Amino acid sequence: MKNFLLLFTLVLLMLPEVKGQDSEKKPPNFIIIFADDLGYGDLSCFGHPTIKTPNLDRMANEGQKWTNFYVGASVCTPSRAALLTGRLPVRSGMASDRHRVLFPDSKNGLPPSEITLAEQLKTAGYATACIGKWHLGHKKQYLPTNNGFDYYFGIPYSNDMDRLQGDAYNDYWKRPNDSIKTEHFNVPLLRNTEIIERPANQNTITTRYSDEAVKYIKENKKKPFFIYLAHNLPHIPLFVSDNFKGKSERGLYGDVVQEIDNGVGKILNTLKEEGLADNTIVVFTSDNGPWLPFKLNGGSAGLLKAGKGTTWEGGMREPTIFWAPKRIKPGIITDLGTTMDLFATFSSLAGLKLPDDRILDSVDLTGTLLDQEPSPRNNVLYYRGTELYAARLGDFKAHFITQGAYGEFGERIVHDTPLLYNLNFDPGEQFDVAEKHRDVINDIMEMVDEHRSKLIKGKDMLAERE
Amino acid sequence: MKNFLLLFTLVLLMLPEVKGQDSEKKPPNFIIIFADDLGYGDLSCFGHPTIKTPNLDRMANEGQKWTNFYVGASVCTPSRAALLTGRLPVRSGMASDRHRVLFPDSKNGLPPSEITLAEQLKTAGYATACIGKWHLGHKKQYLPTNNGFDYYFGIPYSNDMDRLQGDAYNDYWKRPNDSIKTEHFNVPLLRNTEIIERPANQNTITTRYSDEAVKYIKENKKKPFFIYLAHNLPHIPLFVSDNFKGKSERGLYGDVVQEIDNGVGKILNTLKEEGLADNTIVVFTSDNGPWLPFKLNGGSAGLLKAGKGTTWEGGMREPTIFWAPKRIKPGIITDLGTTMDLFATFSSLAGLKLPDDRILDSVDLTGTLLDQEPSPRNNVLYYRGTELYAARLGDFKAHFITQGAYGEFGERIVHDTPLLYNLNFDPGEQFDVAEKHRDVINDIMEMVDEHRSKLIKGKDMLAERE
Repeated sequence: MKNFLLLFTLVLLMLPEVKGQDSEKKPPNFIIIFADDLGYGDLSCFGHPTIKTPNLDRMANEGQKWTNFYVGASVCTPSRAALLTGRLPVRSGMASDRHRVLFPDSKNGLPPSEITLAEQLKTAGYATACIGKWHLGHKKQYLPTNNGFDYYFGIPYSNDMDRLQGDAYNDYWKRPNDSIKTEHFNVPLLRNTEIIERPANQNTITTRYSDEAVKYIKENKKKPFFIYLAHNLPHIPLFVSDNFKGKSERGLYGDVVQEIDNGVGKILNTLKEEGLADNTIVVFTSDNGPWLPFKLNGGSAGLLKAGKGTTWEGGMREPTIFWAPKRIKPGIITDLGTTMDLFATFSSLAGLKLPDDRILDSVDLTGTLLDQEPSPRNNVLYYRGTELYAARLGDFKAHFITQGAYGEFGERIVHDTPLLYNLNFDPGEQFDVAEKHRDVINDIMEMVDEHRSKLIKGKDMLAERE
Repeated sequence: MKNFLLLFTLVLLMLPEVKGQDSEKKPPNFIIIFADDLGYGDLSCFGHPTIKTPNLDRMANEGQKWTNFYVGASVCTPSRAALLTGRLPVRSGMASDRHRVLFPDSKNGLPPSEITLAEQLKTAGYATACIGKWHLGHKKQYLPTNNGFDYYFGIPYSNDMDRLQGDAYNDYWKRPNDSIKTEHFNVPLLRNTEIIERPANQNTITTRYSDEAVKYIKENKKKPFFIYLAHNLPHIPLFVSDNFKGKSERGLYGDVVQEIDNGVGKILNTLKEEGLADNTIVVFTSDNGPWLPFKLNGGSAGLLKAGKGTTWEGGMREPTIFWAPKRIKPGIITDLGTTMDLFATFSSLAGLKLPDDRILDSVDLTGTLLDQEPSPRNNVLYYRGTELYAARLGDFKAHFITQGAYGEFGERIVHDTPLLYNLNFDPGEQFDVAEKHRDVINDIMEMVDEHRSKLIKGKDMLAERE
């Protein structure tokens, strides 16, 4: 043992000091791993008792766990538009009061005038790949390859669309799991713009997505790269590879999350093996909260209220982890951040200027990531469609309108006096403190008025269907 | 850098291999850190967004985080009796249908015929200390020093007793925090059997308890030792040292938890500094769930239902961590365990036989702690007073009776068909699956019948008051 230790040390000492040599020269790589309908409480490191996510837990331990990180909308399409453009979807027209998301018969998609994060990073020579769910327009001109991505592999919308069994999926949670087959959903799998499989085999899709990401890393490691890996799962209907079936104590939903976690492990390990770990920023988060009416097949928002489709915390606060050993300063971050901030943050890290011909809703989180400086973000706007339902300023959130979704959590109520919660004290939004803090409501209204005064709503891109 | 590394290695190689030398000879030390009314969701590592518990998080990372760990009752006195005797409180008479806990005018306490964990460990030569809340009888004959502890320092019952302000504390959550003073509660602080301070200064009590534990470790390190450190907080009313006041983003409740966490850090660091870490088993848990009617001054059960006083999961499942570097195999344990199991587990680790003249409700968790073997426990019994309200067998829990507490979560209901939940799928007890799993209910009823057939209820020790 002693001799071995001595030998090992001597060998180490003889090696040239290569560490960081490459990383100083190249701008960092970026990987966004985006889950679909994963709840705030569905990872071990965010408190789930029986879903085991050792790779995400390790990612959180080695990196930063963000506990107040938000998305731009509580459903798929607008949330994804927000992430990729760094702008509230109401600005791009990717939010609508008529339809909440795009469907297979929708005519439009993300307007070409929008600048995606991929388009932005391409100006710095990045190799860019979109792997997984797109949901920003499935017609050729709206696909990832027309939005700044060199490469696309994935299902262009939700995995419950193109139903061959009609609306059978609607009572999915009442039926035995094995009566729902991947063949019931005629969703296409695309490589770039071509359909290569239909219906896509959803049983294997999660691992295939992770493997595509691993392959892309290995093939593009000479260039800086950006991978946007947007899993189709654990969105309903749930499918899982044989290797993960029945493995989680949480049941099928847990199996699916654990398969995603396994892919995270493969990606982090590849980065380490390839010597890219210190120079690659990896982010894990979800597009919106859990789809609660699906009961045990949906996820859990943990201690947060409600879920997908609502502007309660359970709909829009996501379990978020940033990772890049030796670069991102490990810890728990309780400051505010949103998926929209990735645009400014990655631009900053890549040495790129932000577009100055439009309003961005993106702040640069670099100081928080690298040095745990206070986050420059002090507010969150909670839109439902094109209406502002709630706003957070610092610790406090005011609800102007509340409304449940999918038949749960109540009808639409417009509040003459907004409901007010101190989210740091009361993340479950249980104790209204409006009466005690009129001044806070005034501050929030002032912030909202300022926001509204500059808002130009984009043309509704979700309305038209064939 | 290279030279330093070489030097460091050479120094290491010259050191004699002392590791484990002492630890082979001596039985392990034990420290139980017991919080009061802490919720399942109130630690960072159990998912709280804004309470920061870096020491407990580190303890969980280096040790085992148990996510299905229970107490013997959902209120103070019987829960503490269960822990110290390894027996359901219904057997010792420390559970009552008349009063849920002991009060300052209660006549009795833990019967002398009970064998406490301290008495058991004393037979193997342990130095034993009880620091903190006792609540198993405050008359001299019932105090810790008459129950196997060499040393006692603490408040002998709850911190909200002996009220000088009458029932003012009852609407505590409606009043400004600073209108509630530690002097309003005339609780005594004892050293051994003598009152040394009255009213006890509760502002400083948490740190004083932790410091007493540190001192006891240093003074007793030659012997094997057992420290039962039972904090009086975060039980209502909340008090905190100046050093921690206003420090938590969660408010006063968070301040208090963070002061407890700080004490955990001091204790773990002392063990490391004294070379005792590998041979000391430290357990952290709580006596019951959060006291929810106190709203923001009470804790959070996270994704679990209800809290203190109930037999829902929020009342009896606790955030639990075991720690002993190099000895306890790190990981997340989803198997079943209870505070009662500490009796058999510590006895086993100390090489002691269990008493054979009584029924114990204690199983030996050593294999799980040291090697992550499956836990030998397959059931949990949820008593309220002397009535069995619910029972868990494997993944499933059947509720025979449900009832809220302190005016919340509903009246008593006796269920002709028990409610049945799969707790691993559905920790929030939302989706009754009794109809689908009649066989499981039958298995649970069989287990309960077997339990009842051997049950002899102890004489009610909580009933008599002066």
